[in-house]
Amino acid sequence: MALGKDYAGQDCSMARALEVVGERWTLLIVRDALYGVRRFSDYLAHLGIPRAVLSARLHALTEAGVLAKEGNEYALTPMGVELWPVVHTLARWGERHRSGEEMRIFVHAECGGRLADDATCPACDRPVRPADVEMHPGPGALRRDDPVSVYLRKPHRLLDPIHT
Amino acid sequence: MALGKDYAGQDCSMARALEVVGERWTLLIVRDALYGVRRFSDYLAHLGIPRAVLSARLHALTEAGVLAKEGNEYALTPMGVELWPVVHTLARWGERHRSGEEMRIFVHAECGGRLADDATCPACDRPVRPADVEMHPGPGALRRDDPVSVYLRKPHRLLDPIHT
Repeated sequence: MALGKDYAGQDCSMARALEVVGERWTLLIVRDALYGVRRFSDYLAHLGIPRAVLSARLHALTEAGVLAKEGNEYALTPMGVELWPVVHTLARWGERHRSGEEMRIFVHAECGGRLADDATCPACDRPVRPADVEMHPGPGALRRDDPVSVYLRKPHRLLDPIHT
Repeated sequence: MALGKDYAGQDCSMARALEVVGERWTLLIVRDALYGVRRFSDYLAHLGIPRAVLSARLHALTEAGVLAKEGNEYALTPMGVELWPVVHTLARWGERHRSGEEMRIFVHAECGGRLADDATCPACDRPVRPADVEMHPGPGALRRDDPVSVYLRKPHRLLDPIHT
């Protein structure tokens, strides 16, 4: 099927969002950037996709203003960080209905409380900025041995740069 | 690029979710189902995609348990309805960063308050079930003339079946 990436004629802001983040692998790149991945080589190792696909996606996300490039590093812009609730909500849905087990656990760093599905902290009854979220490996985590996966076996704050 | 639809090896529940809803057009079908579209012919008219693509996507969503088929109608299951916050959050992000104008406005039917980005009602300070959300055309709405678009020019509760 020769389908492009735009949704011309769709009267819908979600369609406009999907034109930026709806391509295959794109939300996984945004997820890695939320985890703190910045270097091309780290995205490559953690995602295991062809270099050409990764290059094209990083370029498109940079053009769209989701990532900012500095040297050979790509970090989220504020607009990109705003995608955290989408990533978290989709992950929780996948966990409930597809994975069966928690692969990663997200907690409010300040109080240690587990985040609710909507990425708020029920214990503190307020939204939590991604920079205040700490991730831990869950019981369903795979034992992958690429440098990013190894790095993320220890608790890690979202957005803190990962330099393997 | 010959990329499949799975993300084997990705240690992540979001990857599992995207294996179900990450294909091109799939989240737009879920959106239409949230709006109350049920008939094959209505999805076809509103999405404007080839019949074969629509058939394949509806079949995959039914297999995955996101939609349930009855006769020639496809409606969301409870698991599918749980995708509403993802659709809403992505739409708001697209509106802020890509559309410029609101194409649709979502309000809490009971109090008339506009939903916050996380699909809660700030006026009532609580989550709102999709069935309690009323959608209105926004100032950026296009004047499309397919039967579903015409139907949705009037205020409409999410999930209320649309029969054009």
